[in-house]
Amino acid sequence: MLWMVLGIAAASLTMFGFVPQIIKMWKTHSAKDVSGLTFVQFGLGVTLWMLYGIHLEDFIIIGANAISLATLMIALGIYLKLNQGFQRKRV
Amino acid sequence: MLWMVLGIAAASLTMFGFVPQIIKMWKTHSAKDVSGLTFVQFGLGVTLWMLYGIHLEDFIIIGANAISLATLMIALGIYLKLNQGFQRKRV
Repeated sequence: MLWMVLGIAAASLTMFGFVPQIIKMWKTHSAKDVSGLTFVQFGLGVTLWMLYGIHLEDFIIIGANAISLATLMIALGIYLKLNQGFQRKRV
Repeated sequence: MLWMVLGIAAASLTMFGFVPQIIKMWKTHSAKDVSGLTFVQFGLGVTLWMLYGIHLEDFIIIGANAISLATLMIALGIYLKLNQGFQRKRV
């Protein structure tokens, strides 16, 4: 029970970890210092974590990474929209 | 064996997920659009994931989150250094 609470707390913090970044981009309408590659790399990573969670039959791992993936797609969408037409090199 | 490779691939992608953001901040000397709260929230989250990994006795989860925590501390350090003295509101 304690471990389940701990797992849910861990999952809640990381699955919504990009929410402050999304809010900041949304409010400031600026994302030039933000790394889009970080969103892409995390997106691939959490997709594989979901599969690993299926292997472990651990619903906390599966669910947390599914929600992470959703927030990452939102973050990447906003990032691309804000940087549309920019000529600067993106890391 | 396949699952181990998948777990390691998942872990590698996410544990180094903030490296592109670190490189971008380092190269551009700018982090004003970056959310420091995202680093703090992830830092707390991966710390709890490490504990959850200890519970599951899963070394991939433990190791991946330990390395994540290290990269997050580097990211937060650079972020704070770059934004030192800034008066703008941070989300």
